[in-house]
Amino acid sequence: MESKQTGWLWYPGDLELYHTLRQNFSRVERGMGWPAYWKSSSFRQRVVFWREYRLTEQTSFRVYARGQGFVRVIEETEGDWHIDEISRSHERREYKYPFGDTITCGPGKVTVIIHVGRIEALPAAYVEGDVIRSDVGWQADDYVRPVPAASDPVFNDKDQDPAEWPCAVERMAPVRTEEVPGGTLYEWETELTAALEITAAPDRLAAMTVYPGESRDEALDTEHCYLRWKPEITADRGQTALGRTPVCAVRYAFIPGPPVEVQALYQYVDYPVRASFVCDDPLLNRIWEVAVHTFRLCCGVFFIDGIKRDRWIWSGDAYQSMFVNRYLLADPGIERRTLLALRGSDPMETHINTIMDYSLFWVLAVQEHYYSAWDKDFLASVYPKVCSLLDFCAGRLDDKGFLTARDRDWVYIDWADLDKEGPIAGEQFLYAAALKAAAEMAEILGETDRQATYARQAQALREQIRSYYWSEEKGAYIDSFVSGRKHVTRQTNILALRTGMADEDQTDRILENVLLSDEAAPIRTPYFQFYALDALGQLEQYDEILAAIRGYWGGMLERGAVTFWEEFDPAVTGTAQYDMYGDRFGKSLCHAWAASPVYLLARYLVGLETIMDCSEGEEKLSFILAPQLSYFGKLDCTLPVGMDGASVQLYWDGHSLRVRADGTEGYLRADGCTHYKLEDGVEFVTEDYREDR
Amino acid sequence: MESKQTGWLWYPGDLELYHTLRQNFSRVERGMGWPAYWKSSSFRQRVVFWREYRLTEQTSFRVYARGQGFVRVIEETEGDWHIDEISRSHERREYKYPFGDTITCGPGKVTVIIHVGRIEALPAAYVEGDVIRSDVGWQADDYVRPVPAASDPVFNDKDQDPAEWPCAVERMAPVRTEEVPGGTLYEWETELTAALEITAAPDRLAAMTVYPGESRDEALDTEHCYLRWKPEITADRGQTALGRTPVCAVRYAFIPGPPVEVQALYQYVDYPVRASFVCDDPLLNRIWEVAVHTFRLCCGVFFIDGIKRDRWIWSGDAYQSMFVNRYLLADPGIERRTLLALRGSDPMETHINTIMDYSLFWVLAVQEHYYSAWDKDFLASVYPKVCSLLDFCAGRLDDKGFLTARDRDWVYIDWADLDKEGPIAGEQFLYAAALKAAAEMAEILGETDRQATYARQAQALREQIRSYYWSEEKGAYIDSFVSGRKHVTRQTNILALRTGMADEDQTDRILENVLLSDEAAPIRTPYFQFYALDALGQLEQYDEILAAIRGYWGGMLERGAVTFWEEFDPAVTGTAQYDMYGDRFGKSLCHAWAASPVYLLARYLVGLETIMDCSEGEEKLSFILAPQLSYFGKLDCTLPVGMDGASVQLYWDGHSLRVRADGTEGYLRADGCTHYKLEDGVEFVTEDYREDR
Repeated sequence: MESKQTGWLWYPGDLELYHTLRQNFSRVERGMGWPAYWKSSSFRQRVVFWREYRLTEQTSFRVYARGQGFVRVIEETEGDWHIDEISRSHERREYKYPFGDTITCGPGKVTVIIHVGRIEALPAAYVEGDVIRSDVGWQADDYVRPVPAASDPVFNDKDQDPAEWPCAVERMAPVRTEEVPGGTLYEWETELTAALEITAAPDRLAAMTVYPGESRDEALDTEHCYLRWKPEITADRGQTALGRTPVCAVRYAFIPGPPVEVQALYQYVDYPVRASFVCDDPLLNRIWEVAVHTFRLCCGVFFIDGIKRDRWIWSGDAYQSMFVNRYLLADPGIERRTLLALRGSDPMETHINTIMDYSLFWVLAVQEHYYSAWDKDFLASVYPKVCSLLDFCAGRLDDKGFLTARDRDWVYIDWADLDKEGPIAGEQFLYAAALKAAAEMAEILGETDRQATYARQAQALREQIRSYYWSEEKGAYIDSFVSGRKHVTRQTNILALRTGMADEDQTDRILENVLLSDEAAPIRTPYFQFYALDALGQLEQYDEILAAIRGYWGGMLERGAVTFWEEFDPAVTGTAQYDMYGDRFGKSLCHAWAASPVYLLARYLVGLETIMDCSEGEEKLSFILAPQLSYFGKLDCTLPVGMDGASVQLYWDGHSLRVRADGTEGYLRADGCTHYKLEDGVEFVTEDYREDR
Repeated sequence: MESKQTGWLWYPGDLELYHTLRQNFSRVERGMGWPAYWKSSSFRQRVVFWREYRLTEQTSFRVYARGQGFVRVIEETEGDWHIDEISRSHERREYKYPFGDTITCGPGKVTVIIHVGRIEALPAAYVEGDVIRSDVGWQADDYVRPVPAASDPVFNDKDQDPAEWPCAVERMAPVRTEEVPGGTLYEWETELTAALEITAAPDRLAAMTVYPGESRDEALDTEHCYLRWKPEITADRGQTALGRTPVCAVRYAFIPGPPVEVQALYQYVDYPVRASFVCDDPLLNRIWEVAVHTFRLCCGVFFIDGIKRDRWIWSGDAYQSMFVNRYLLADPGIERRTLLALRGSDPMETHINTIMDYSLFWVLAVQEHYYSAWDKDFLASVYPKVCSLLDFCAGRLDDKGFLTARDRDWVYIDWADLDKEGPIAGEQFLYAAALKAAAEMAEILGETDRQATYARQAQALREQIRSYYWSEEKGAYIDSFVSGRKHVTRQTNILALRTGMADEDQTDRILENVLLSDEAAPIRTPYFQFYALDALGQLEQYDEILAAIRGYWGGMLERGAVTFWEEFDPAVTGTAQYDMYGDRFGKSLCHAWAASPVYLLARYLVGLETIMDCSEGEEKLSFILAPQLSYFGKLDCTLPVGMDGASVQLYWDGHSLRVRADGTEGYLRADGCTHYKLEDGVEFVTEDYREDR
């Protein structure tokens, strides 16, 4: 018997497409819905699930469905198969049953076919029984392509509806209630994704408007705050009534009039945290905690950008979330769902999120997911969409082979002053990297022809890039060669490093002329701080990384941040610091791309890198741990290794180092270059450990 | 100002796709939902509507939507445009508004952009205002392709939701209530698409099951009847309660127990009937009436097959409905909707309704629609799908160039004993005809390359067909050459005639050896009676047509038919006559494809043919009327000409003939070959008319 539990079945990818619509249509601004402004793929409304059984005895089952339809059962006795050879004659009988009926069938060959149609939401089916049940082995069919049906352990209960994602709910009272001019301000311990439940006199509740805010300033600014709700009355008890707002980002809430009882119903998808980080620097510890909280808030069914404003699934943002996820939640499901959500259905007709760089990051994200989860089946299933994406890009090249923007394409890169005239360097670096990644994926999947084609294209593009975008005069890559401005930005040169465009000499010069120079404009988004610091990490510039974490993220803490922000410019203060996109409270104060200290600390300071060890003939998940202990007087960490529950623990008290791998083996790189083998479950202890840097 | 009324807007084709899902998922059998078993295309969940205005003065408007979203207004003053040349500076201001707000803007350039997202149903928008309103000129966009927005006069009221098609409702009491063993049988005057409203004691209603039937036998057979309902309680008034069943096919209803009050709420899409036919033969008059009623019942949002069972949109069935529509309702909307419904979205991945011949009939239907409605815009919009369908077919040819069935393809042709081994003749005839039709459409649209390609392919295929399927020995076309059986059927040879495959000599031999011979098996479906009689009509075999109408359709009337049936075999009587698909009451007794007497009488006996008259240099809708008056002692008819309200009236009292065209001009072909010109609105009178046949 298959080990997989009985669960709901659907057509692969459709759960993601349906919930993507829900997620990307959930944005609200000042009472207006704001569905995401890009092509939105639909889900299949009509599906069939089927499976053949060879039953040695009679059995019973029951089918539940979300949608309309019926169950068709075909029973056949086949002489050449039947185990006791009693039956030699072939008989075929067909039956139809409504959902919910107990169906008895067998022995013999039995085919169960479940027809489901549902227009408004994801069609799905669940089969309950001892032998015939919805476990592994069912086919899903849309009348075009039968494929193995999809399922998820999240939906194993027959009373569920896979169109409704289950959430954990915690009731939280405000930590402070303050009477302010015109009303009352309620404050919670931290920022939450919560519905507000209000108990008040029925008349007052009926007339009430609630103003939530990510900042105190926002909640108190009833004109400019991003959200406002009229609570829905959920119960009327005569003297008092109960009202509820939709779920939104809440740290503060202003309600006109004297205090009432307000509770936050904190709702979240409960991904277990698989990492911990405690060191002797309270600032770093606090940054880690706040980054973890920020990240978890932005992990719903998918990686979303932030919790107050867009709540959309953005590719570049999600790409970064994967690096944090790898070291924090190690959840492969949210990565797969997000990758499917972003790419939507073929044909590929527009860039992901309309952004050229985000299409290319998606290809890199597919590769990163593979290197996190080592899931070849998923890679094989999504690879055709990598190819159709690259085909789409190939249709937008100029005569030099550079990827160019068409009418509706957004060339983003960063919120920064880049020279965007003509094809720009950043996009070409990413395009070359995406081609290279596609070649590597093709190799993994044994697609030799594609491997060769993509590798050749990548190589040709890299040569073109070097000759058009490298400026010997500037000692750096320039944004654009078309404008003649030779504009040098951190962003462009960081991407050159990240994508392996820069050779050793170029790298040295970029480091000197751009990264460690004050001439190029500073980075204002945590988004590009991630790429900048990751590039510095690759160059072992740990001082720089720690200084930036303490300075930049620490700077947000100094402003009272309880979650990290979409953008932070230390020079801007007061209410102006919440302003973005020409909107006084437009800035998101809880933004996934600001959670990168988790990754940066784990990857470069704790020094964990996951690898696939092929040294003993077969591929085995492994890791190298190269902790930078000289920066810590104490360090006590656990980090996940891969996405199957393995982990590594490290304890350092300034003298002795203890390391222990669980569920995997790995290597400790200490004393500069020595590798110690770490056996599974065996604690490795070095008294008087000395790191030689 | 545009003349078009203010109405709801949606993305072209999506109204059809959404309602197709509703229609094709509406089938119920014995309490089980039965969504149509083929690929079902979805609709776009995210759309934008926009329009630019150049306003000379301030104006106000209000936007309503079905879905979530907002209105974005961009106001610009442009010096080089502004009419009084006061403003030379360019200013740009953007505003956002929720739906329902009064928005004031102008003067100047104003762009109104309406964002709508709706997952569960068709997203749509409505703009109310004096100047800015949702009339002609709006663009719809799915972020891939902006196109002119679609609308329909059916949805001109802002309180409507285009996801809900408006229906007329009539309350009808049963004409007979009969106490039968175990309960009461209610009978209506004719068959209806109705909800049953039942007034009874609350307890009784709660326990009640209602058994509707198309026949008395069906309603009384509570085990085998196709439908059964537990009424939904809609009102409880203490002593009595009100319950209601879903809308279904009802002529009879059995309810266990003593009589209760039952009313039918007849619901239908109210297409005005634009034709009348009265002659001196009461049987023909009755056949006309019953055919009209049958057809109207099967005209919902789309042409559906029948009202009791499938309620699905089938291509071959719809193709025939178009011929009846042309002479009865002359409604172009239902034809366009049905064509879009059937074809669904690209890519074309499966045959329409899974049936190979139905894909090909769809191409012919597109052409027929053009020749009924002369709507070149629609032809241009749907032509790319004609091409993708033919591309799909081109991928399924064998080495002789014949269209072959793949794994999941259904080769239907008719419910009859055809030799279906290998590629069969009927499919090749239709494929050749579809290629020829596509070439003609290409010519109309000025696509010269495609015209040449399709014409060449059609010609090559016709030559192949003649050499492989014509049997000199049989003097007829054979179903299959692969089997060696040389099986001759009416179906195959009728299609040879219909598609112009048979040359003059072959036509004569087919007429003698097959059509007018008793050797080939008779036709049992009204579906193929249509093709058979249409072929005979083309050969001017009016005696045969009238004999068949009186015999075959008259035969159904003799069995008490109030609507015409899916299949009729005069040899089968009793309850067995309702049996089909191995289901005792599986046969549909109200089936669109049985309504063809309307077409046959109008086209061949009243003799009306619509043409495009190019004689005066420009294309003008015209007609030829060639009434076969020798068959009638009296004839009083009105028939539509084209689909824009034109008509022709004919009155014949056995001696004098009066004919009058309204809204068009045409020709009367009388005395065998003389053409009389019929001027618009001028009555043409011939005393002592003599038809020379």
